Amino acid sequence: MQSSYRSIRPCLTSNVKTLTRLQSRSLATAAQQSFFADEPTAPHLVSQSIPGPSSSQISQVIASFQEERAHQFVVDYEKSVGNWIVDVDGNTMLDMFAQIASIAIGYNHPRLLELARSDEFIKATMNRPALGSFPPAKWAEWIETGLLANDVRPKGLDHLFTAMCGSCANETAFKAVFMAYRARERGEGVSFTPEELDSCMRNQKPGAPDLSILSFTKAFHGRLFGSLSATRSKAVHKIDIPAFDWPVCPWPAVKYPLDKFAAENAKAEQDALNIVEQTIIKQREIKPVAGLIVEPIASEGGDQHASPAFFQGLRELTQRLGVFMIVDEVQTAMATGSLWAHSKWNLPTPPDAVTFSKKLQAAGFYHNLDLKASLPYRNFNTWLGDPTRALQAREILRVVREDNLLDNTAKVGAYIYENLENFTQSNGKGKMFNLRGKDQGTFIAWDAETPEKRDEVIKKMRSKGVHLGGCGEQAIRLRPMLVFQKHHADIFLENLSNVLKEI
Amino acid sequence: MQSSYRSIRPCLTSNVKTLTRLQSRSLATAAQQSFFADEPTAPHLVSQSIPGPSSSQISQVIASFQEERAHQFVVDYEKSVGNWIVDVDGNTMLDMFAQIASIAIGYNHPRLLELARSDEFIKATMNRPALGSFPPAKWAEWIETGLLANDVRPKGLDHLFTAMCGSCANETAFKAVFMAYRARERGEGVSFTPEELDSCMRNQKPGAPDLSILSFTKAFHGRLFGSLSATRSKAVHKIDIPAFDWPVCPWPAVKYPLDKFAAENAKAEQDALNIVEQTIIKQREIKPVAGLIVEPIASEGGDQHASPAFFQGLRELTQRLGVFMIVDEVQTAMATGSLWAHSKWNLPTPPDAVTFSKKLQAAGFYHNLDLKASLPYRNFNTWLGDPTRALQAREILRVVREDNLLDNTAKVGAYIYENLENFTQSNGKGKMFNLRGKDQGTFIAWDAETPEKRDEVIKKMRSKGVHLGGCGEQAIRLRPMLVFQKHHADIFLENLSNVLKEI
Repeated sequence: MQSSYRSIRPCLTSNVKTLTRLQSRSLATAAQQSFFADEPTAPHLVSQSIPGPSSSQISQVIASFQEERAHQFVVDYEKSVGNWIVDVDGNTMLDMFAQIASIAIGYNHPRLLELARSDEFIKATMNRPALGSFPPAKWAEWIETGLLANDVRPKGLDHLFTAMCGSCANETAFKAVFMAYRARERGEGVSFTPEELDSCMRNQKPGAPDLSILSFTKAFHGRLFGSLSATRSKAVHKIDIPAFDWPVCPWPAVKYPLDKFAAENAKAEQDALNIVEQTIIKQREIKPVAGLIVEPIASEGGDQHASPAFFQGLRELTQRLGVFMIVDEVQTAMATGSLWAHSKWNLPTPPDAVTFSKKLQAAGFYHNLDLKASLPYRNFNTWLGDPTRALQAREILRVVREDNLLDNTAKVGAYIYENLENFTQSNGKGKMFNLRGKDQGTFIAWDAETPEKRDEVIKKMRSKGVHLGGCGEQAIRLRPMLVFQKHHADIFLENLSNVLKEI
Repeated sequence: MQSSYRSIRPCLTSNVKTLTRLQSRSLATAAQQSFFADEPTAPHLVSQSIPGPSSSQISQVIASFQEERAHQFVVDYEKSVGNWIVDVDGNTMLDMFAQIASIAIGYNHPRLLELARSDEFIKATMNRPALGSFPPAKWAEWIETGLLANDVRPKGLDHLFTAMCGSCANETAFKAVFMAYRARERGEGVSFTPEELDSCMRNQKPGAPDLSILSFTKAFHGRLFGSLSATRSKAVHKIDIPAFDWPVCPWPAVKYPLDKFAAENAKAEQDALNIVEQTIIKQREIKPVAGLIVEPIASEGGDQHASPAFFQGLRELTQRLGVFMIVDEVQTAMATGSLWAHSKWNLPTPPDAVTFSKKLQAAGFYHNLDLKASLPYRNFNTWLGDPTRALQAREILRVVREDNLLDNTAKVGAYIYENLENFTQSNGKGKMFNLRGKDQGTFIAWDAETPEKRDEVIKKMRSKGVHLGGCGEQAIRLRPMLVFQKHHADIFLENLSNVLKEI
């Protein structure tokens, strides 16, 4: 299905009106103009349950050669459009999970299809370079007008390392941090000792140093061996995999909504900062902390939030204690109403690195000059990312810019949040807890009473044609695309209201 | 530049004639019909040196935001065609390095450009799925007619894990190995203990077990934290990066050509096998070896070869000692005259996993059922590979099949090898050592006298328009594409003959 897209301003005013009372049909009719001309206006379910028979059949075929037990349903991506995902049984669902938060501007966006048909894109995709040695003629232009454009790159970070995925982004950032930490220890201009050169080949110190990355409880930073050592989300992610003995600190024990418990949360955050400081100092005698990695909102682990003061504190103490600070924006980039979630913290100095992937389709990390390796080939690999995805990122960013999609996300997010807040006092009373994500665009979550109840809500919502995702133990996380508008939100809210009544 | 491709059978007969005496111009005129109708017939150099002024200028722009010191030259991929790479200064070079061995069937292959223009490809690229949860309708078809086709998948390995790059392929294979090893230790149907579930979250055993992967000296298995711990190529790849304390065993100290020193090599290989066996047994008390990873030809480390008997011995002892065997075919796949280099070993039982990336553009590992995780979400990530690249792999494999490109590679490789063997007795005497890669397609290498002499040969060859790569300390490795034909080989041989005279 070829879709067309209207470059319009969302109709929401900045003075978001709260939907105080939900009435069954009134919401859908209040639909504003969609970004996509041919988007469905309502869910349409064909099969008795999801996955339907065609999905199940295809999953069984896939099961003969690949893991299928995590399949939710099999998708007809050709028919999916905008915010709507269509499965192979013909079920049309409002997609608020968006491929685990990795679709930015909707399925079959005409601008991306147009990009894919361009000669420039075709040649870039089919002549994939070893970027670090044989860059394409336009590489600088693609990056400088895309991922490194003035209004894109995080403030203060002018360098870019491109990689293949979020885990790779974090791991190459870790490598950069370890190299920079050792370079600083060594002193300027001091080269490697013969002992270091020899011992690193045997995976022994001093060449392979006993350094660590500090992360937080419930953090998720990826699934490869370095990133998984920093990940603390769930046992199923980590069990049976050897890990580096790296330190973990508790995420501040904040209460939601953050503003209501401001005083208590300030104390909780200070307690957490104290533990981070003590841990870094204690680790000096064990495995010094070269880098600290933190998500603006710990997503997979259950959408844990903290206030800007906490992150300001982390930046202050990492600088004071000589620890590089990495902000992992793999899931938060473009989703919280601003391009970078960390830009809202008003940090005294920028973090040393910001990692990204998912919605940008391209992956890697922005960094300052300290994190540039001392020699070529140190932080290196064959592909060093993918021009295909760098071009895609540029086009996504252009659409986001032209259509004010960050603003759209901020406003729609505020609209959703206010309605959910009302739900917690009405149909959702005793069924929704810890609503969080105020002023974080559509990056909103709440807890169900139990993991089972959470799963029940997700299942019931899907049976009404609204596709949601969970995270953490019992949270529901909203991860719609940037083209999610008020009329989509109304469909979600109406159905949620009904589900909350039913359960 | 749009290129057209002739689907022809190479003119070489299987009875390869050895070029016994090189005469300066006779070779180029002996050119057979090229697979590409519009391929250049000879190098054409415009700038006084390479990189030329335009390359240098662009590299300097890139240097403002990204590592540029490993740049060799900046490429005009739109003008490059078949075996010929054209840089931004207009220099046309015969490319025998092929983006660090990762271009299979030539630049701007019409079949790949056609694929890229297809609606199926465009939609697959621009609607990138979270494959493990929301696979596309045609995923099974794309895989079963591509990467898992009967004549493609390694014998005995019916399962496929898709990933993003070679390092990711090896690391996810390591994860599969660790999980399978612990599952076997635990016994069938025994679930995780509370202690395991708790300790893994702290990166401590028993949940994060003290297990290891055994690899060989000079091995290269990637650059992320797990794969880099198995990599033993060069200090510049490893220094300052924390590593797992995993064991390494010496690659057998064979002499080249392998067949000439068969008896001595058999002893060297047996010695190496004995050390592997002793190491695995010794490690049981320290960090048991769950998996052994080996390249058929240790490529980055300097093209180290061994005989099939060595690999048969590895398979025998890994099976006997309960160690999973991973064959890393990231660089060797499709390059040695057969699809998989390990298929020539005639193993008693297949390896447990075979990893791939580079020329296939798609990445991942084939495996047996033992390496399927016990639960979903254990070996998982958002993208789990990329349908774009799976479709590209399928098309590459189709062209390879239809045009008998493996056969072409075997024959051209034999032709090159025989000529180089003659060189070692003529112009190359005292300048070429340890010629290796007989019967390994175009996967051929030799050593120069010193690292500096190696670099000099590569530089002089480039100044004549032939682009080569080095590996190890002082080796030159040939890594042409599968469309490299006799007339290309003649250009290479003629120029090398001249360079060997000059140095």
